[in-house]
Amino acid sequence: MSELSVVGKALVRTDGLRKATAQVTYGVDFKLPGMLYGKLLRSPYPHARIISIDTSQAEALPGVKAVVTGKDSPEGLFGSRINDQPPLAREKVRYIGEPVAAVAAVNEATAEKALGLIRVEYEEITPVFDPKEAMRPGAPIIHADLGKYQASPIFCHPVPGTNIMNYMKIRHGNVEMGFAQADFIFEDTFTTPAQHHCCLEPHAAVGQVGLDGKATVWTSTQGPYKVRTESASALSMPPSRVRVIATQVGGGFGAKGRAKLEPHCVLLSRKSGRPVKIVLTRHEVFTATSTRHPSVIRIKTGVKSDGTILAREVEVILDTGAYSESGEIVCWEIGQGAAGPYQIPNVKVDAYAVYTNKVPAGPMRGFGWPQIMWASESQIDIIAHKLGLDPLEVRLRNALEEGSVSATGEVMHSVGLKECLREAAAAIGWDDQRPPNRGRGIACLTKMSVPFLPSSAFVKINEDGRVGLLTSAVDIGQGSDTVLAQICAEDLGVGLSDIEVAVPDTDTTPPDMGVIASRITFHVGNAVRLAAADARQQVLALAADMLEASPEDLLLADGKVFVRGSPDRALSLAQVSTAAFFQKGGPILGRGSFLDEDVVPTDPDTGQSPKPCPYWKYGATAVEVEVDPETGVIKVLKLASAHDCGRAINPLLLNGQIEGGALTGLAYALWEEVVFDGGRITNPSFMEYRIPSTVEAPNISPIIVEAEHHAGPFGAKGAGEASTIGVAAAVGNALFDAVKVRIKDLPLTWEKVLAALEKKADDDRKEA
Amino acid sequence: MSELSVVGKALVRTDGLRKATAQVTYGVDFKLPGMLYGKLLRSPYPHARIISIDTSQAEALPGVKAVVTGKDSPEGLFGSRINDQPPLAREKVRYIGEPVAAVAAVNEATAEKALGLIRVEYEEITPVFDPKEAMRPGAPIIHADLGKYQASPIFCHPVPGTNIMNYMKIRHGNVEMGFAQADFIFEDTFTTPAQHHCCLEPHAAVGQVGLDGKATVWTSTQGPYKVRTESASALSMPPSRVRVIATQVGGGFGAKGRAKLEPHCVLLSRKSGRPVKIVLTRHEVFTATSTRHPSVIRIKTGVKSDGTILAREVEVILDTGAYSESGEIVCWEIGQGAAGPYQIPNVKVDAYAVYTNKVPAGPMRGFGWPQIMWASESQIDIIAHKLGLDPLEVRLRNALEEGSVSATGEVMHSVGLKECLREAAAAIGWDDQRPPNRGRGIACLTKMSVPFLPSSAFVKINEDGRVGLLTSAVDIGQGSDTVLAQICAEDLGVGLSDIEVAVPDTDTTPPDMGVIASRITFHVGNAVRLAAADARQQVLALAADMLEASPEDLLLADGKVFVRGSPDRALSLAQVSTAAFFQKGGPILGRGSFLDEDVVPTDPDTGQSPKPCPYWKYGATAVEVEVDPETGVIKVLKLASAHDCGRAINPLLLNGQIEGGALTGLAYALWEEVVFDGGRITNPSFMEYRIPSTVEAPNISPIIVEAEHHAGPFGAKGAGEASTIGVAAAVGNALFDAVKVRIKDLPLTWEKVLAALEKKADDDRKEA
Repeated sequence: MSELSVVGKALVRTDGLRKATAQVTYGVDFKLPGMLYGKLLRSPYPHARIISIDTSQAEALPGVKAVVTGKDSPEGLFGSRINDQPPLAREKVRYIGEPVAAVAAVNEATAEKALGLIRVEYEEITPVFDPKEAMRPGAPIIHADLGKYQASPIFCHPVPGTNIMNYMKIRHGNVEMGFAQADFIFEDTFTTPAQHHCCLEPHAAVGQVGLDGKATVWTSTQGPYKVRTESASALSMPPSRVRVIATQVGGGFGAKGRAKLEPHCVLLSRKSGRPVKIVLTRHEVFTATSTRHPSVIRIKTGVKSDGTILAREVEVILDTGAYSESGEIVCWEIGQGAAGPYQIPNVKVDAYAVYTNKVPAGPMRGFGWPQIMWASESQIDIIAHKLGLDPLEVRLRNALEEGSVSATGEVMHSVGLKECLREAAAAIGWDDQRPPNRGRGIACLTKMSVPFLPSSAFVKINEDGRVGLLTSAVDIGQGSDTVLAQICAEDLGVGLSDIEVAVPDTDTTPPDMGVIASRITFHVGNAVRLAAADARQQVLALAADMLEASPEDLLLADGKVFVRGSPDRALSLAQVSTAAFFQKGGPILGRGSFLDEDVVPTDPDTGQSPKPCPYWKYGATAVEVEVDPETGVIKVLKLASAHDCGRAINPLLLNGQIEGGALTGLAYALWEEVVFDGGRITNPSFMEYRIPSTVEAPNISPIIVEAEHHAGPFGAKGAGEASTIGVAAAVGNALFDAVKVRIKDLPLTWEKVLAALEKKADDDRKEA
Repeated sequence: MSELSVVGKALVRTDGLRKATAQVTYGVDFKLPGMLYGKLLRSPYPHARIISIDTSQAEALPGVKAVVTGKDSPEGLFGSRINDQPPLAREKVRYIGEPVAAVAAVNEATAEKALGLIRVEYEEITPVFDPKEAMRPGAPIIHADLGKYQASPIFCHPVPGTNIMNYMKIRHGNVEMGFAQADFIFEDTFTTPAQHHCCLEPHAAVGQVGLDGKATVWTSTQGPYKVRTESASALSMPPSRVRVIATQVGGGFGAKGRAKLEPHCVLLSRKSGRPVKIVLTRHEVFTATSTRHPSVIRIKTGVKSDGTILAREVEVILDTGAYSESGEIVCWEIGQGAAGPYQIPNVKVDAYAVYTNKVPAGPMRGFGWPQIMWASESQIDIIAHKLGLDPLEVRLRNALEEGSVSATGEVMHSVGLKECLREAAAAIGWDDQRPPNRGRGIACLTKMSVPFLPSSAFVKINEDGRVGLLTSAVDIGQGSDTVLAQICAEDLGVGLSDIEVAVPDTDTTPPDMGVIASRITFHVGNAVRLAAADARQQVLALAADMLEASPEDLLLADGKVFVRGSPDRALSLAQVSTAAFFQKGGPILGRGSFLDEDVVPTDPDTGQSPKPCPYWKYGATAVEVEVDPETGVIKVLKLASAHDCGRAINPLLLNGQIEGGALTGLAYALWEEVVFDGGRITNPSFMEYRIPSTVEAPNISPIIVEAEHHAGPFGAKGAGEASTIGVAAAVGNALFDAVKVRIKDLPLTWEKVLAALEKKADDDRKEA
């Protein structure tokens, strides 16, 4: 590859000035003339039959313009890959907070008042909150129609007649034989709590429906096309009759990847004939959107005395709450990850996503991998300490590398794992002397990309030589507008500031499956490269004609087309484009669509596939902590986060992604937990749900390792989620290193540490 | 061509329901939160130097947020093909109504009040209002920089040091020799007045500028990209830094094809930091936007006694007002049309567009051709009557036909002229007995398309098998959204209702040079066909793979892909598209750009070109009138308007276009005239400027003649303007037929008719 001029550079984000000066419109700020305000009436019961709904008093309240219930969308169901959710509850409710009715009124206060006038008669049904209980025969069945729901066969293996929404398996080698050959066998059970996304901006959308039935929705979303698909499915409309336009997004982290309040805006607008805006309250966001999946993970690992892993058996139980949300694929991925980034010849995994009568668990930055890596990397540490080996060395001994065969039968490519481990360890001084109560921990990570999600792009060369770039990738703060513009600029030989990135809008920007799964740089980046190549080919053909040269002899750089070796024979891109506009062939447009076609669906019985996903990321987190034995408080002194995301298109933005993700991971390790009392969340506000501030944030050292991927744009993979994963295990391992207590249940609160220290002191006394 | 299923059908327009139920937003209705209102201070003098402008009092008025003058855009000039116009006057003003300053305030009343507080000191300069006077040596020079302006060499031949903004020539054969061979020579001078567009919706735009300098403009426009280009030029910005989004348009007719108030919205928003809306008053629209060009046309024609035309010499003087607007190309086209749609071996044309100190004359439906056809077709009638020949027969004898050589040296293709003449004549009973004071007249017409204007389109196949169509062609009421959707639907084998047409937006919809010059069906239609073919090829390739067939064996129809001869082997377009989305290659996108590359610029000295434009339209208007000899009132009893616009994509909409245009032509014939007193318009309102109502509208018989064009989409040409042209001559000719008076100056008011009847009676008395 020739030298790059824009890609790989640490350039300042292009939307920075606009955002810093509040010259952008977030979903909460978007307004239309004549707009009404919508509110949702939510179920107070975790599980109940709806006997009747009387909306007459609400409808009679002056200022109320529309009231809708399940009867206004009698058929449609939506979901990510299992369509199990109505926009408004029909026969029954399945969690506290489920929408039952919606009101549009001239202001929020009137809408709120109207909610209080709606009479809903419920008949309670026995709820179930614990996923293990929910799996037992005789448990209350939350979705009697589970076998009838439309579901993707690639990812979904529901067990009808039970609450098991998805069951995924890996069968690789022979675990029994592996355990028989092992010198040591370890078996541990780890748990993780629900975590909340904590977007600064709550969910907000405005819907407008014309008399011709076409709906337009402006929404703070990570996935305009995904919202389109799901809203249309919920409302039994063709997807292309729902136009979704992305506003600026004040934080997404997975919470805004799917339809939430958009179908309700559409229903209310259709009924009232006016645009309707809904903004969720913070309480609603906490109690009725989604969380990271709580999990119970049992891991049994057989090793030789030198630390070589021979066999691993894993059982994962995910509490997916009342609706699938994206739990089906979180389950599928967590199963894929259960072996960790290691060469293990014998692997058996059984992963279950189980319905309970709680708020749905859904996609959240990391998508199952923080859970499985917490469990897996904690146990690796247990093994190392038990065997008297360096935890770093145990990892390096078993780590995947280029050409390794994975637990799902794939020959791996682009594996920067060992380098990440070594660099992260070195960055915190792994081998240095430890003062008392200080400890160091390391954990590695891998994450797959989600397969079967396409992207596309249009490129148009303006007559001024500047380039319009159209994709449906929303810049949700991570900097994708800048990264995609860099890729486009590189391929068209122009500067970053020469690219105009269009606002995602399903009527005009081409399809994309959303800013999820760290997929934008790889997928949309590839689509942009294809579109740019298409445009570039047209530019060169025309320039060749104008310069009387062969296209192969031309170079496109610095906004100019040159004849190779004759720099004086040149045209500006503006000249070529102007010629196209007014003399030859018409405006230059490029198109590109990308989907990794080499991916093969995993076998449903064994989880095996020669290529289950487009690419894998790798990384390692190393921390040094100080534990206060009096208070149990863990203070993180150093945090190094090393990531192999393939080529770094923009190291500045990548470092930002690493730092932000690592802090989310640290919060997961130490503080954050959505607390349930039965089906009710008891800490649904920022007063009660603790997120870290700058006071708690350690200095984070981001480290970039570039194992270029042959199929990635300029060798890039993706970066959005990786650094979130593995932090918890690194901290837990450092805790053990510091004070020799092992906690298997997140978060690692001071109460748990103190209790563990007291128990350890007791045990030590007993032993002595 | 196989049988067509959507193209050629008289389908109801797709936007009808939305428009009829007021579910669309016109420019005057568009609002943004926090929006300011702008007003323009206009020159009270036709020609004056600006000595000073004091805005301090206006700026101090509470509620005023920005005041701008020429100093806020010190450099940029804009124009269609000659950039001669500043957005706000700098050193001098050139017409009464020229913008001198602009104010943005919290409401219109405050902005209006602030205008009164701006002190402008002028020094008057001698103005010139008559184009013939303006051409004379020693006339006041309106544009001293004429030689320095950026101008398109293809169309523009300004004469620096004079007021001649453009001078175009045709030299074909040898007119002196032709006249020498003629049996009769006729020489007549005809005049036409200024006509006003009379859009129901006045000009309206909202501009918003971010701190990063990018401007977004929502405007009621016929040409988003044209407004972009001109606004950027006026403000010295790169075009792609101005985003133009089209609102619904409440009438355009050429008045809204170019930048008018958009640069002012941008300047005021840039200075105030808030969105700024400007809506022109009706008085401003009349006095300070544009008119159809007033003209003086002298025609000398030599004929044989059988009516064969041997030679024609034409001089055209167009009063183009203070700025070029599009007068340069109106002049170029009117010159091209001066020979009429006839085979004339010897032609000499000199056409001048001349600056005067009046409101600019600009593009208006028909674009010069109503003027030249009024003159040319009136004289043909004079000739026929003088020679004692049937006027229809004289036309048929000389009419162009397939393979004729035109006066500009082109071998003509797709010429339905003779059929139009015969059908129009037949429709009004040409040969029937005429009662007293009734007369019949006929006139034919031709119109060229404008060359060197490109179009482009994107097509995206949605996962539901429905199709997104992106172009920048604004449906201004003529039905282009429907026609383009028909073309797209035909090529992709889906129904009209399966097409979603996107809103034109220069950031997302691909480039197009505007809804002008009857160009949309031909140019954008061709771009749509290319984009659809591109998408279709992808659909067939993927379907072939899925059906295990060869792409050549597949048919795309009824939303399905079939194997030819095996109708059971079929996939729905949704199935193919869904497979593309999630399994193969990614979303299906098509792109298409069109520009007629066979066009050759006309020779500047002779006007000759083997192909000066993409295609020519032909038509004929026949009328029967009754003249009241007591009042001079001409009543049109029958009007047949026959048009060869190539294949009619939608006969229902084409008939609507023919009827609407014919009424505009009739208004031009009988009533409409912008009256000037020096540089001041004396009838700037609908109280004083008479437009026809349904009372005056005759029954119009539209006749469609389809001479398919090899390069048109499905053989189509264009239809927007043709029926406007030639009506005046048909009415004038019928007037002569009825009462034997010939009027050479439009409009044919009752006053002129009465005066002519009185003069004729006098003359008859003198002769007797």
